[in-house]
Amino acid sequence: MSTLSVSENIENHPRVKAVFDDIRQTRQTDFVNNMWRYLAFDPDLLESTWREVKAVMVTPSALDPLTKEMIYIAVSITNACSYCVHSHTAAAKSKGMSAAQYADLLRVIALAGKTNQLASAMQLPIDTVFTHD
Amino acid sequence: MSTLSVSENIENHPRVKAVFDDIRQTRQTDFVNNMWRYLAFDPDLLESTWREVKAVMVTPSALDPLTKEMIYIAVSITNACSYCVHSHTAAAKSKGMSAAQYADLLRVIALAGKTNQLASAMQLPIDTVFTHD
Amino acid sequence: MSTLSVSENIENHPRVKAVFDDIRQTRQTDFVNNMWRYLAFDPDLLESTWREVKAVMVTPSALDPLTKEMIYIAVSITNACSYCVHSHTAAAKSKGMSAAQYADLLRVIALAGKTNQLASAMQLPIDTVFTHD
Amino acid sequence: MSTLSVSENIENHPRVKAVFDDIRQTRQTDFVNNMWRYLAFDPDLLESTWREVKAVMVTPSALDPLTKEMIYIAVSITNACSYCVHSHTAAAKSKGMSAAQYADLLRVIALAGKTNQLASAMQLPIDTVFTHD
Amino acid sequence: MSTLSVSENIENHPRVKAVFDDIRQTRQTDFVNNMWRYLAFDPDLLESTWREVKAVMVTPSALDPLTKEMIYIAVSITNACSYCVHSHTAAAKSKGMSAAQYADLLRVIALAGKTNQLASAMQLPIDTVFTHD
Amino acid sequence: MSTLSVSENIENHPRVKAVFDDIRQTRQTDFVNNMWRYLAFDPDLLESTWREVKAVMVTPSALDPLTKEMIYIAVSITNACSYCVHSHTAAAKSKGMSAAQYADLLRVIALAGKTNQLASAMQLPIDTVFTHD
Repeated sequence: MSTLSVSENIENHPRVKAVFDDIRQTRQTDFVNNMWRYLAFDPDLLESTWREVKAVMVTPSALDPLTKEMIYIAVSITNACSYCVHSHTAAAKSKGMSAAQYADLLRVIALAGKTNQLASAMQLPIDTVFTHD
Repeated sequence: MSTLSVSENIENHPRVKAVFDDIRQTRQTDFVNNMWRYLAFDPDLLESTWREVKAVMVTPSALDPLTKEMIYIAVSITNACSYCVHSHTAAAKSKGMSAAQYADLLRVIALAGKTNQLASAMQLPIDTVFTHD
Repeated sequence: MSTLSVSENIENHPRVKAVFDDIRQTRQTDFVNNMWRYLAFDPDLLESTWREVKAVMVTPSALDPLTKEMIYIAVSITNACSYCVHSHTAAAKSKGMSAAQYADLLRVIALAGKTNQLASAMQLPIDTVFTHD
Repeated sequence: MSTLSVSENIENHPRVKAVFDDIRQTRQTDFVNNMWRYLAFDPDLLESTWREVKAVMVTPSALDPLTKEMIYIAVSITNACSYCVHSHTAAAKSKGMSAAQYADLLRVIALAGKTNQLASAMQLPIDTVFTHD
Repeated sequence: MSTLSVSENIENHPRVKAVFDDIRQTRQTDFVNNMWRYLAFDPDLLESTWREVKAVMVTPSALDPLTKEMIYIAVSITNACSYCVHSHTAAAKSKGMSAAQYADLLRVIALAGKTNQLASAMQLPIDTVFTHD
Repeated sequence: MSTLSVSENIENHPRVKAVFDDIRQTRQTDFVNNMWRYLAFDPDLLESTWREVKAVMVTPSALDPLTKEMIYIAVSITNACSYCVHSHTAAAKSKGMSAAQYADLLRVIALAGKTNQLASAMQLPIDTVFTHD
């Protein structure tokens, strides 16, 4: 159930096909997941979103790929984004996340959910040592 | 501005003092931040929260301490928990987070915030390859 | 799957029937969607909710009906309210939202999701030109 | 109070200066707000964020500029992003939002906040007429 | 800092004065808090919001006044609504919330924040015994 | 659909079996819901989570069991945690929540969702009478 339907022949559109081909080559798989198939309704949105995902998540950077996936999962869980939790948990596993790392990730995310509530409840004043201006 | 006031002499309470002493020894500093000073209104809540923070964030585990802080930051940002963002960003810096890592953290968190909105907007069906039952 | 069951004969209740009749006449359709069918378990809640929805969304006001639906969608997406995203996206389409407008809506919502994360991450001080006291 | 400090001479960095100059020219004002001044700690993040904001919010598109600001406000309110609510409410006023439109915006956002809670509470099944697959 | 300024003479407007008088009489105090003073920019919004708050929170109903305030606090904490946490925690205290009840409230809210994250992380299938259709 | 699969023989693990036995005895039922069956992938996480749920929700405390369930529901609805809304609404019903109480709960939660948006929209300054420092 979604708010859009995907056309049977989305890859007939040359800009869509170019993005899908780049996804397939980048990930070394024929599979293109629904995020991209549904975004294809607007080639601009498809292109700009894929360009950013590739730049942030695929291009080597200061954080390693698995750490980036776990941060992505943390945001997605907190936003209750079901699709995103599924897709990024799968991605983290494919990048080598062990069961022990997954359990640790859940422990930190759960603890943060808890202490965020406590800090919000008490409306804690921010310690001056934590600030910069 | 908070919903509680902190008593001048909170450390007169022996259970509060014991927790504060353990925080000071664990962190090798005399400073005890407001989270603990305000939680001290209920020694049970103070003890159980510190015990869990220590077990999850201090005890060596499958993820390294800096990765855990960055995951904590990701949840806190998404929950718009001002105190938590300040305290855990400071903690991550004290554990060695570089400016390049911080910029990378923000890039991933910002991108997740964006694609979470897109997935929620389109109500994407979950690809069967992402599921387990 | 819901937390309530809908009685077979909800319209036997005269206050429920009156609300459903008004929904049908206002929208010029026989269809009454699940929001109202489930709220019927408490006629007061049904009446007051419909009265407010009608006053805000149907009565002519400073913003046009399609703009109001898109604002409704923006809140619903951010709250990850699956039912609300579905029902208000359908409503916006029935009020003439084009594919180009929908893509633009998604672009703004996605960008806001991203920059909200950046502002929350950096805990930006509010520029004095933005404030009123 | 923020998690970063802004260097006195941020515009000495040529890439930062180029973005600031483009912001000033695009908005026809000397004022550069804190979002950009703090993002300048990482010129890549500054450039890519400004490029996207300019493309989505400044370039003419299917939705008019004021409608886009109101959608931005709706997301920011729902995310409790204080900085974003302030900056985009100011932007909407500068684009002509009247008091009557602002009141209407608040009415829709408040109603959506309310009915999102009701739909989430009852876990409403999605009416089949609202779906596409 | 807010997005509106409050006029010096807001009570010169007869509809605003009528609402403020009713707030004062209902609460048996001369004090009118900022929620109402700022909402006064639009008398319709002021009247309808006060009418609903009075009906739900003041009129005797199935739940007692203190329980309703604690539920209000729970939502406000989770939404990170700083003003709302402050005002409703003050209201709960004025209705007799003890320190032990406040600590218990925080324990439940914190635990829910934690287990919500775990359930969202694992994307748990809903047990059939919990559903109604 | 979940991010984990549950092993057929989870209760062969002695620590898992001990927790499940305690759940069954505490609740006086053979049924163990999915939260616990999925958490069993990590016995530490299972044990610590159940220990906390039992301490907060089962052990007699300042708030009665039904009030605690309604507060839990309020957080879960606001976080859009589908599983949690289902399980805690079922728990509240089993602890005697009447239809009138449920309607009242929804009225308060919906009103809080609405006024949280208004307070966040206007960025209300906190009245000094609400604060403690």
